[in-house]
Amino acid sequence: MHDETIPEGPAGDLLRALPPGRVLTDPDATGRYAHDHAEWAPYGTPLAVVRARTAEEVRRTVAVCREHGVPVVTRGAGTGLSGGANAVDGCVVLSTEAMTAIKELDPVERLAVVEPGVVNETLRAACAERGLWYPPDPASAPWSTIGGNVATNAGGLCCVKYGVTRDYVLGLEFVTARGDLVRVGRRTAKGVAGYDLTSLLVGSEGTLGVITEVTVRLRPARQPEHTVAGYFSSVVDAGRAVAAVAAAGLTPSALELVDRHCLKAVDEWKRMGLSTEAEVVLLGRTDAPGAAGDLEAEEMRRCFEAGGATYAVRSTDQREADALFEARRLAYPALERLGPVLTEDICVPKAAVPEMLGRIDAIAERHDTLIANIAHAGDGNLHPLLITPPGDEAARRRAQAAFHEIIAEALELGGTVTGEHGVGLLKRDGLSAEVGPEVLDLNRAIKDALDPEHLFNPGKVVAYAAG
Amino acid sequence: MHDETIPEGPAGDLLRALPPGRVLTDPDATGRYAHDHAEWAPYGTPLAVVRARTAEEVRRTVAVCREHGVPVVTRGAGTGLSGGANAVDGCVVLSTEAMTAIKELDPVERLAVVEPGVVNETLRAACAERGLWYPPDPASAPWSTIGGNVATNAGGLCCVKYGVTRDYVLGLEFVTARGDLVRVGRRTAKGVAGYDLTSLLVGSEGTLGVITEVTVRLRPARQPEHTVAGYFSSVVDAGRAVAAVAAAGLTPSALELVDRHCLKAVDEWKRMGLSTEAEVVLLGRTDAPGAAGDLEAEEMRRCFEAGGATYAVRSTDQREADALFEARRLAYPALERLGPVLTEDICVPKAAVPEMLGRIDAIAERHDTLIANIAHAGDGNLHPLLITPPGDEAARRRAQAAFHEIIAEALELGGTVTGEHGVGLLKRDGLSAEVGPEVLDLNRAIKDALDPEHLFNPGKVVAYAAG
Repeated sequence: MHDETIPEGPAGDLLRALPPGRVLTDPDATGRYAHDHAEWAPYGTPLAVVRARTAEEVRRTVAVCREHGVPVVTRGAGTGLSGGANAVDGCVVLSTEAMTAIKELDPVERLAVVEPGVVNETLRAACAERGLWYPPDPASAPWSTIGGNVATNAGGLCCVKYGVTRDYVLGLEFVTARGDLVRVGRRTAKGVAGYDLTSLLVGSEGTLGVITEVTVRLRPARQPEHTVAGYFSSVVDAGRAVAAVAAAGLTPSALELVDRHCLKAVDEWKRMGLSTEAEVVLLGRTDAPGAAGDLEAEEMRRCFEAGGATYAVRSTDQREADALFEARRLAYPALERLGPVLTEDICVPKAAVPEMLGRIDAIAERHDTLIANIAHAGDGNLHPLLITPPGDEAARRRAQAAFHEIIAEALELGGTVTGEHGVGLLKRDGLSAEVGPEVLDLNRAIKDALDPEHLFNPGKVVAYAAG
Repeated sequence: MHDETIPEGPAGDLLRALPPGRVLTDPDATGRYAHDHAEWAPYGTPLAVVRARTAEEVRRTVAVCREHGVPVVTRGAGTGLSGGANAVDGCVVLSTEAMTAIKELDPVERLAVVEPGVVNETLRAACAERGLWYPPDPASAPWSTIGGNVATNAGGLCCVKYGVTRDYVLGLEFVTARGDLVRVGRRTAKGVAGYDLTSLLVGSEGTLGVITEVTVRLRPARQPEHTVAGYFSSVVDAGRAVAAVAAAGLTPSALELVDRHCLKAVDEWKRMGLSTEAEVVLLGRTDAPGAAGDLEAEEMRRCFEAGGATYAVRSTDQREADALFEARRLAYPALERLGPVLTEDICVPKAAVPEMLGRIDAIAERHDTLIANIAHAGDGNLHPLLITPPGDEAARRRAQAAFHEIIAEALELGGTVTGEHGVGLLKRDGLSAEVGPEVLDLNRAIKDALDPEHLFNPGKVVAYAAG
């Protein structure tokens, strides 16, 4: 049956293949799906947006796109910071945000099976009700989806003790570039049957397949945390404290750094009464059970002092502790109020944290750019935030130069160009510089093997000469 | 300079390319490198064995083999149980057992950089001296090498709490099928720069590259463990106890099952005075610190009782506790004294453990085959050990039929055909049955992308029509 009112071509075929309401073609609507949160990453105009509700609808969408040679750019909540979900001209943006079912939550197997559109915090709340815990906690947790978290291998505060998203993905269902709906991975605690396609898909930013279901490993609900706050008059001192924590054999459940610029911006916005006298604040947490937690918190406090804290204190007031972590979470939106924010995401060896923070300061001065710092300090994962006054083109260019210099210096210190945000568009050159031509070719070989026509998110992660 | 005494051909070219003493061609010597510990897996005759001492020697070996189209079968200590390191006719077996340097052990970054021939326990001992811990602990730890552990993604007793080898591999250096010596992964705590080639190489059984260096993540030395032993009169009861431990939200640092056949065989060999009255023994451990460990051990004991233990006790005697775990470790060699042992390696959902153990009993009876059981019960990873009297061909055929039936039933219960030993040769059919044709094709696409000429360990993991 052919509906005469539906046009020919890919958009029309999508409208015919899918239930009503799934396909958006109105430019006002599609424009909202054209890019993620990365400042300065280019994006094109999609020909349509598909808001799929089932794996079968994803499969059909991919089938239509294959037939017409139309690129598919998959997208979760669009909270990415590297341009990984940005539209290319004439693509179909395939949003999985409406696939929100938590299909299974099994306390004995300690796993959950979810659709990709489930919001991170929704899953965490559902787990908590069953005495379980899904650790990965990117700062975007209230909005970002599990599908997006998996596609970017999202990190967060808990990584320092509990690892990243990849460490929790047991299995995936996805649609291949051939158009098959397949399952990889497992539901069991262990398994080595064939190549680890699951880990390969995690962090592949939609370039190898469209994820339609995720099986994640869970942990039992954890113990209440103890919080330690340390105030430092220099980043170098704070860096020394981070190194002291590692050298003492402690394993904090969070070890975050927030600088004065961030605290000031949050306080001006939220009036939380945060101290802005210190240059840097370190926030440590431990969830070791019982007396061991007390002991670890006290040892962490001593490490902060040994590093040179002007003041280091175990928070006895849970509200105060929560406020400090809330300030860390709010740093990014607070700074955005000052102007466009370009977010860096380098990760360096832990011992290099003070040196790298010092170099970032020097770069900020050299390029006359305001750079605020938040960092998963215990991981060496730094997020310098480059802020430019709205509309100031010259400042933008200076910030961009600073951005590239930060990447170069991170590599010089043995670091990586992206700790947890992904390559997307912003880190493609950085990736080349980091891995070199032979490994870049191995990346291309993987892409060509699983998506020979470059149907999925072309131009992301690995650049090709043809773009 | 051409040495007239060295023959033409690949063996001669290897002799010319490598320092003296690296290349073995005497059949008596090469025969010792022709196969691993897998009973019944076929193996061929290598044309030479290379015992490389450096990454450059590995690179040269691969270059010569490429030039002549000679397959390269890489091998660590040869303790594998799936035939993954078995020679194919006319191949070069490339042994990395002589690459034994621990290049770096960094307590602040909590990582080690090692050559592939380092024995697992050697690394663990070196870590312990620095207050660090490398968790993966396959039963072969006193002999198996890190290279082999990485190639097979080895598991062990600690996995139930601490994960498998892949969870500890940060980066790799390896020689590609093109002959390049490359580095993938990182030294930092986090990183998402490009596809996860590191995880792809882990568990690939030498089919995608030859590993020449491994960077592993370490943990701080852990707390002393508490041990709990439970004696059960049926496997179903023991399985119920395992499920009770998971349901109670406990996270044991080991949860092992050993059956009567194993205890008897070990006791007859070592005269350790083990009780063989129980049908099954469960051995639990917890390393939660301080009072929390006491509490968890006591809760585990109660779970054992709730499952139906005839006797459950917290071991107050460290020697007794160690003896029980030693018995578990000795089960395999003890049973080998009775005749050839075919080791199974299925992994099923935890809740399915009692059902699977029951089915194994039924299969043993149906095929008139002695099947002993050891299991990483907390992971659902079961190792039924099929024992046949030496030289009894009919018994061998019955055992083989039982082996295939166990695999089929594990799949029926939602399990995998290999939890930690790898696919090698013995589980190739099982892999096909488990993943289906589309995912098998994805595996082939990966192999073809990274090793288009099938230079590395041909015929392992993924079968091709041509063998």
